Amino acid sequence: MQVYQAPLRDMRFVLHELHGDTALLTQTGEALDRDLVDSILEEAAKFTHDVLLPLNAKGDAEGCHFENGVVRTPEGFREAYRQFREGGWTAFSCDPAYGGQGLPEIVNKLVEEMICSANLAFSLYPGLSRGAYQLLHEHGTEELKSLYLPHLVDGTWSGTMCLTEAHCGTDLGLIRTRAVPDGEGAYRLTGSKIFISAGEHDLTENIIHFVLAKLPDAPPGTKGISLFLVPKFLPTPDGRPGARNGVLCTAIEHKMGINGSATCQLTFEDAKGWLIGAPHRGLPAMFTMMNSERLSVGIQGLAIAEAAYQSAVAYAKERLQGRALSGAKHPDKPADPILVHPDVRRMLLTMRAYTEGCRALSLWVAAAIDQSERGEGAAREQAADFTALMTPIVKALFTDLGFEAANLAVQVYGGHGYIKDHGVEQYVRDARIAQIYEGTNGIQALDLVGRKLPAHQGRYLRRFFHPVTAYIAERKTHRELGKMAGALEKAVGALQLASAFIAEKGLRDAEEAGAAASDYLRLFGLTALGYMWMRMAEAALGALARKPGPEEALFYQAKLTTARFFMERILPQTAGLYLTIKSGKESMMALPEAAF
Amino acid sequence: MQVYQAPLRDMRFVLHELHGDTALLTQTGEALDRDLVDSILEEAAKFTHDVLLPLNAKGDAEGCHFENGVVRTPEGFREAYRQFREGGWTAFSCDPAYGGQGLPEIVNKLVEEMICSANLAFSLYPGLSRGAYQLLHEHGTEELKSLYLPHLVDGTWSGTMCLTEAHCGTDLGLIRTRAVPDGEGAYRLTGSKIFISAGEHDLTENIIHFVLAKLPDAPPGTKGISLFLVPKFLPTPDGRPGARNGVLCTAIEHKMGINGSATCQLTFEDAKGWLIGAPHRGLPAMFTMMNSERLSVGIQGLAIAEAAYQSAVAYAKERLQGRALSGAKHPDKPADPILVHPDVRRMLLTMRAYTEGCRALSLWVAAAIDQSERGEGAAREQAADFTALMTPIVKALFTDLGFEAANLAVQVYGGHGYIKDHGVEQYVRDARIAQIYEGTNGIQALDLVGRKLPAHQGRYLRRFFHPVTAYIAERKTHRELGKMAGALEKAVGALQLASAFIAEKGLRDAEEAGAAASDYLRLFGLTALGYMWMRMAEAALGALARKPGPEEALFYQAKLTTARFFMERILPQTAGLYLTIKSGKESMMALPEAAF
Repeated sequence: MQVYQAPLRDMRFVLHELHGDTALLTQTGEALDRDLVDSILEEAAKFTHDVLLPLNAKGDAEGCHFENGVVRTPEGFREAYRQFREGGWTAFSCDPAYGGQGLPEIVNKLVEEMICSANLAFSLYPGLSRGAYQLLHEHGTEELKSLYLPHLVDGTWSGTMCLTEAHCGTDLGLIRTRAVPDGEGAYRLTGSKIFISAGEHDLTENIIHFVLAKLPDAPPGTKGISLFLVPKFLPTPDGRPGARNGVLCTAIEHKMGINGSATCQLTFEDAKGWLIGAPHRGLPAMFTMMNSERLSVGIQGLAIAEAAYQSAVAYAKERLQGRALSGAKHPDKPADPILVHPDVRRMLLTMRAYTEGCRALSLWVAAAIDQSERGEGAAREQAADFTALMTPIVKALFTDLGFEAANLAVQVYGGHGYIKDHGVEQYVRDARIAQIYEGTNGIQALDLVGRKLPAHQGRYLRRFFHPVTAYIAERKTHRELGKMAGALEKAVGALQLASAFIAEKGLRDAEEAGAAASDYLRLFGLTALGYMWMRMAEAALGALARKPGPEEALFYQAKLTTARFFMERILPQTAGLYLTIKSGKESMMALPEAAF
Repeated sequence: MQVYQAPLRDMRFVLHELHGDTALLTQTGEALDRDLVDSILEEAAKFTHDVLLPLNAKGDAEGCHFENGVVRTPEGFREAYRQFREGGWTAFSCDPAYGGQGLPEIVNKLVEEMICSANLAFSLYPGLSRGAYQLLHEHGTEELKSLYLPHLVDGTWSGTMCLTEAHCGTDLGLIRTRAVPDGEGAYRLTGSKIFISAGEHDLTENIIHFVLAKLPDAPPGTKGISLFLVPKFLPTPDGRPGARNGVLCTAIEHKMGINGSATCQLTFEDAKGWLIGAPHRGLPAMFTMMNSERLSVGIQGLAIAEAAYQSAVAYAKERLQGRALSGAKHPDKPADPILVHPDVRRMLLTMRAYTEGCRALSLWVAAAIDQSERGEGAAREQAADFTALMTPIVKALFTDLGFEAANLAVQVYGGHGYIKDHGVEQYVRDARIAQIYEGTNGIQALDLVGRKLPAHQGRYLRRFFHPVTAYIAERKTHRELGKMAGALEKAVGALQLASAFIAEKGLRDAEEAGAAASDYLRLFGLTALGYMWMRMAEAALGALARKPGPEEALFYQAKLTTARFFMERILPQTAGLYLTIKSGKESMMALPEAAF
């Protein structure tokens, strides 16, 4: 059976002790009481454990049902969504002007993590709605906003993003869906979309699709794509779902995982829609939503890693098999729990180093998002730079590590992990999608080397390197942190050299940047986790110096040990990554097409 | 749709050009004609493509059926097995004294690979039978052998190995199944086993179980385990299936993958069995079978990697998306095939470097098996040493890389890989089991550091290091191979240092060896693949010097490029692995149980 309890102690540590210098403010700038935030997190922990977790394995086994254009979610999802909505979770980090609670991203990301840990398939329904909310909030006219946003915020309506078509996913310039003006200020859309998460379902009264399509006078390629809002039901003037619009779900996909999430094929037949933003400028607008979604997908990776870790630990403590190599630890039992074996610990600590490291990094980025939204002047710009830089890293690194962690959990379970009974193999199948959707991880890596690295002569990069190198420099001779500082300095040095290599080679030959991209992203990501781990170790040392009680001391000691594990047993990968990057593109590009 | 054609050209290269110094002999020592071997391989290629491949995705979707103790395999499996058996494939590498064809392991491993590429779930039925055959052939009395072996060889009967019980898998000392003498030379077995592949099915007339159980006077732990042959139907004196024995299938597992393979729970109720080998010496006898199975499981990893690679290449050539970074390669088409993108090539070449490298390594080991069976004196012992050393490496490395490759294939497909339609996500689910069964990969790593590394003061290790270091030394100044020799020398150096570190530390503290085990196995495996790649590069250079035709030249050029890719972009991982190993056990073992 899947076990999951939100890791509240660690969440509080990251929020208050690691990033505690970031004032907790609402979107309107009011200071948030720490106790209030903690009680919100407790509430979320309770909800995800009591309501969402029990539906996770069941939803996977049952899947969604499709009949005559109607999609039925797995048993229990409707009731859970009703509670979710009534509990105010859809309004959590939305604008108070439209009924939102205005909570900051740094708190929201923790709640998102809990939801995804408990039930990834479920999380996609409100997750996509939140993306739709953001898109409309930023790019919609006041008329559309006042008509649609309150419903997206209170969760009675949901949203989707309709980009992919059967023949194009990454290369959106190829889309064929057309939109023609109807002469009355709106448009009529015709075309087909695939892979639309939450494209049709039974959780909300209405579904608001954000659709990429081409206007009749569209220039070719990605510069000719416009964005439209297309509701399933056309709202009446008083904001109720009215006449059915020409959007039809023609099928749902049978997938490797996230079976509780309806992945839909949608056909638009003369469907009425409203233009969002300027004509032909749909892609940049869509990217508002996409960037936010990419960070959220990263959180999904972290979330699955956490859930998988908890299940694996529970099993490793309870499964008796063999004896500790250093002599029986539980001589009263027929065998020791497998937790005594170094290789089992290696797997568990790897998962743990990933989850806690990623959680710390996710809140560093979330704090920057908050800062980029309500900060002032240079600080605001710097925060926006940093967010832009870290978005592809969070998306790709977290989802790669999440998938690794899910597989490590299965490995801890052995054969019992491969059968469906314990629910850990579901984590592998569910986690796998996160490396693909919202831009494959390869695309994230290209975004990093092609857009983020060269932006403004490396200005984004400096938002990372400046604080990190300054931090290391101050701690190189630190008695307890000096060794970690040395390890981290090596990784940062490799990252700097790799950055320079790509900047120089890539300028002359884009394929050189492309060849280095994925390894560079991983090198960057592991280095960023290394920085987080060193800062966590420092925070733990500080807390231990204040002589906490035994349970708290155990928590901080574990931080120190896991930090050391990360530095000694994971960060060294950076050495090989740098060598790989430096080897250049030739061995990759030399092979002629026919030889494959 | 899944595509797979046996890579015959590469198989011939590895067999004749790379390991061509190994004479192809039958088990009885007759020389095999090269053309005959090639036509056997072609026959196997045809059979696996025409008969087994079409059942792969269907068998996965349908799964096995269980009702009232009866297991029905997916539609088509019975007919395919009949053809398999009638084609003589079950007899392929069996002893001619019992109706076998006596073909050598070096050819058998290639056929095994094809079968597993085409249909892993199907492969388990004959695969387990072959293990049973070997066990009985080596440890059975002449009476049992002459009664059972001909049926296992001609495939009318099949075999299983029954080790695992619900509460114990790795730690077999805990098994509870009991055997009592029946006073007439046989035994009566009572107990329950789980995870029994092919434990019950409808493909053969009889199923012969090899069961671990404890005799009444058994000493505790693994030194008190005996091995029994327990047929589903008790053979009549003339060798036909007679009365039903007390073996019952009580359930089949619902698994992540290999759904066409019946994974059974078996109950033995006063089942009649015959002792194999000496009382209480069942485990060493079972290991005859297990070691052979472990190599075969390694081949499964390679096989899935090959099938996944072929599907991914087909898709990468056909899917049009974006333009080459160096300018459009197919300006006549709406977009270029994704094969032009460096990151897609990185994924494909990684898969290719794995499959071709593993195939070369698998035949190096297969040649050693043949040599260990019919060689003389020192050569025979050396070959046996080498096989013992490489068994855990082949099992764990190949299955880890096979799983990676399957996931890379899904990544190449993107969203289309995550849905079931194309069949690539099945490779991920099928490949996952190979890292677990026949001893988890963590157990393989422990076998390597705990048994193989220290054996006879490092004698096994020398079977690897001696030829490899001598090979490198002779090519360090080679004009075309010198650079590769340098890269390989570094990896071998790291492996030697790591071996010394583990030998020294592990002698004083077994946990130190355990902490290093998995990273050491990977370091060893990648280094071994590096050696294979360098030798393949050398063979390709030699062939190119003989000015072959354009198609052949393309093949050898591709070998050179892929060798370079391996050396430059995969082998550098060894740098990080060595650093990790050297860090020792502390960060792994320091965390108290309560902190997890």
